[in-house]
Amino acid sequence: MEKERLDPWGTGSVKDYARLQSEFGIEPVASLLPRFRTPSPHLSRGIDFGQRDLARVLDAVDAHKPYAVMSGIKPTGDFHLGTKMTADDMVYFQSLSKKGMVYYAIADVEAYADNGLSFQQTSKIAIRNVADILALGLDPDRAVVYLQSENLKVLQLGTVFSKGVTNNMLRAIYGERQIGLYMSALYQAGDILMPQLPELGGPKPVLVPVGADQDPHIRLSRDLAARYHEEYGFVPPSSIYHRLMLSLNGSEKMSKRAADSLITLESRPNDASKKILTAFTGGRDTVEEQRRLGGRPDICPVYDLYRFHFAKDDRHVETVNHECSGGVRLCGECKQEVTGLVKTYLEEHHRKRDAMTKDAEDLLAKSRDYLSSKGR
Amino acid sequence: MEKERLDPWGTGSVKDYARLQSEFGIEPVASLLPRFRTPSPHLSRGIDFGQRDLARVLDAVDAHKPYAVMSGIKPTGDFHLGTKMTADDMVYFQSLSKKGMVYYAIADVEAYADNGLSFQQTSKIAIRNVADILALGLDPDRAVVYLQSENLKVLQLGTVFSKGVTNNMLRAIYGERQIGLYMSALYQAGDILMPQLPELGGPKPVLVPVGADQDPHIRLSRDLAARYHEEYGFVPPSSIYHRLMLSLNGSEKMSKRAADSLITLESRPNDASKKILTAFTGGRDTVEEQRRLGGRPDICPVYDLYRFHFAKDDRHVETVNHECSGGVRLCGECKQEVTGLVKTYLEEHHRKRDAMTKDAEDLLAKSRDYLSSKGR
Repeated sequence: MEKERLDPWGTGSVKDYARLQSEFGIEPVASLLPRFRTPSPHLSRGIDFGQRDLARVLDAVDAHKPYAVMSGIKPTGDFHLGTKMTADDMVYFQSLSKKGMVYYAIADVEAYADNGLSFQQTSKIAIRNVADILALGLDPDRAVVYLQSENLKVLQLGTVFSKGVTNNMLRAIYGERQIGLYMSALYQAGDILMPQLPELGGPKPVLVPVGADQDPHIRLSRDLAARYHEEYGFVPPSSIYHRLMLSLNGSEKMSKRAADSLITLESRPNDASKKILTAFTGGRDTVEEQRRLGGRPDICPVYDLYRFHFAKDDRHVETVNHECSGGVRLCGECKQEVTGLVKTYLEEHHRKRDAMTKDAEDLLAKSRDYLSSKGR
Repeated sequence: MEKERLDPWGTGSVKDYARLQSEFGIEPVASLLPRFRTPSPHLSRGIDFGQRDLARVLDAVDAHKPYAVMSGIKPTGDFHLGTKMTADDMVYFQSLSKKGMVYYAIADVEAYADNGLSFQQTSKIAIRNVADILALGLDPDRAVVYLQSENLKVLQLGTVFSKGVTNNMLRAIYGERQIGLYMSALYQAGDILMPQLPELGGPKPVLVPVGADQDPHIRLSRDLAARYHEEYGFVPPSSIYHRLMLSLNGSEKMSKRAADSLITLESRPNDASKKILTAFTGGRDTVEEQRRLGGRPDICPVYDLYRFHFAKDDRHVETVNHECSGGVRLCGECKQEVTGLVKTYLEEHHRKRDAMTKDAEDLLAKSRDYLSSKGR
């Protein structure tokens, strides 16, 4: 049986979450759920399905000890509903304890290497992305937000790590890639391990929330943490994985590379509605058939809109699932309902986000000063 | 006929300077010699043997237009007589016009990738290296000296370039190498092209004086200058190549990797004398034979000491060569003479250099401020 290779730069989906667990050693989240006082919707709805060493972070939360939450998002455009999930997780895990510090890398080096966006282009997008995550609830007082390309610590760590890896190691993890992508992978290991540098408080648990397809970066970082343990004292980074949303157009993965596959947080409510009304669904060919066999929420991107983002609560998700599979709910009415929820959400998000441009600029400036004041 | 591959990270010598010219397109220096009012000893003694586009720099000198002289030296230890040659060339070409600006990269990233020296170790060595080049005559008012690992512009250019090269291109130039060396090659291209960034005055002739074995870096940089011409307006960098000194112990190349192969500028005069007195020479097996056949200055590292560094003037070099080949001069007396010259030189250099530690620190600090004040 050939291994499924995860491609962090691809547009493919993850086909088999159970296999990820058995083949790559990702552990299920379920057994740790009782440790959360107020589980996030991602946890209670099984969206965050896997983890590595999550317990180490929860131990720090319980003991009121410092920990970090670190993730990166490419500034290739507005947050879409896929990237929002990573942002939601950063916000949630920051909120678990006053000792939680968020490091958010605006991955402009990767955006350049993978998507060809210039640093000028991405620095403009970055401000809007930061305003988005602030509107999603990030506490700026415990957050460091930086552009990868301006962060000497990350670039230096990437350089250090380049000596600790072999080409064979990189090929085994990522397949044969051009050097630009290998370099951006090393910088991402730099992002992930930076919070443990002595000048930033030294070794500590670091949780990296990511989509399931990003696990190769986690494996590389954990490997490097071990290789450089003696020199830096790194604790292996922890990770939590969310499922990938189904794409609205029926393709494999919601992606900024295909405009009709996704809704961004920038979308005008009317445009979003149109995309939803023409979206692929898990419905049957005829009404008669759907009444008889029921719809298939497991392959339906419209159901994913409820489950991943817009249902009022967990019960609402269950109701939709139940009514759909039971043939009670047809696609038309289901789309109408979620369209209303999306419109309301976007209008409110835009209001919040527009009020936060200045805060976003301040946070970036404050973070820049903070990092450069912490000499190596 | 297999191509000679130049290995910028190796300890091999360059075996055939003429072939370098025919195979890699390095042009001889000779035809340009009349353009120099006061040729340096490297020029008049044929030590600087090859060049690419040197005329472009000489045109700028003649027209009183801005040009840059750029080279990098790894901070793996004290300057030795090999690295001194690169430094001598930087100083000489800076002196040709008041419009000449030197950029000296302290190649700590390469020292890390190639030699495993930590940034902490190299930052200490760097100060001594800068004091050395100041003692050799560098004008600090027209010089920017920086640590590669701290120079965001260089690291960013390296990242940009990583997208413009393919793994095949890198393999063709350098052979199959680990990613750390490829990355440091890209950073060196960043060093070489940085003086042409808009914030540093934009496109201009840049001369890179290097040892003949470093030509692969020049070819990569010239290739990248062409690939990124549209975006940055880069002029292809010019280069001038010096011959490599013969090693005192008879091995191929004087190298910091073999202590008995070289004399450093830090050497105590007595230690230097001892190395010279036991050095390999181009002498014959017996005095009789040497009187009859003459010595062989072409394979003699002691002759190289005269020719490359310590002869009083060009005439003195000729005399030594002539007397040696004619069987008049024997190795013992020849070594005695040069030992005296080396001792005098080192004593004077140490005096000058020791007085310059503070100036070295100032130059590094001033350069750091200058580069960071020139935002992208």
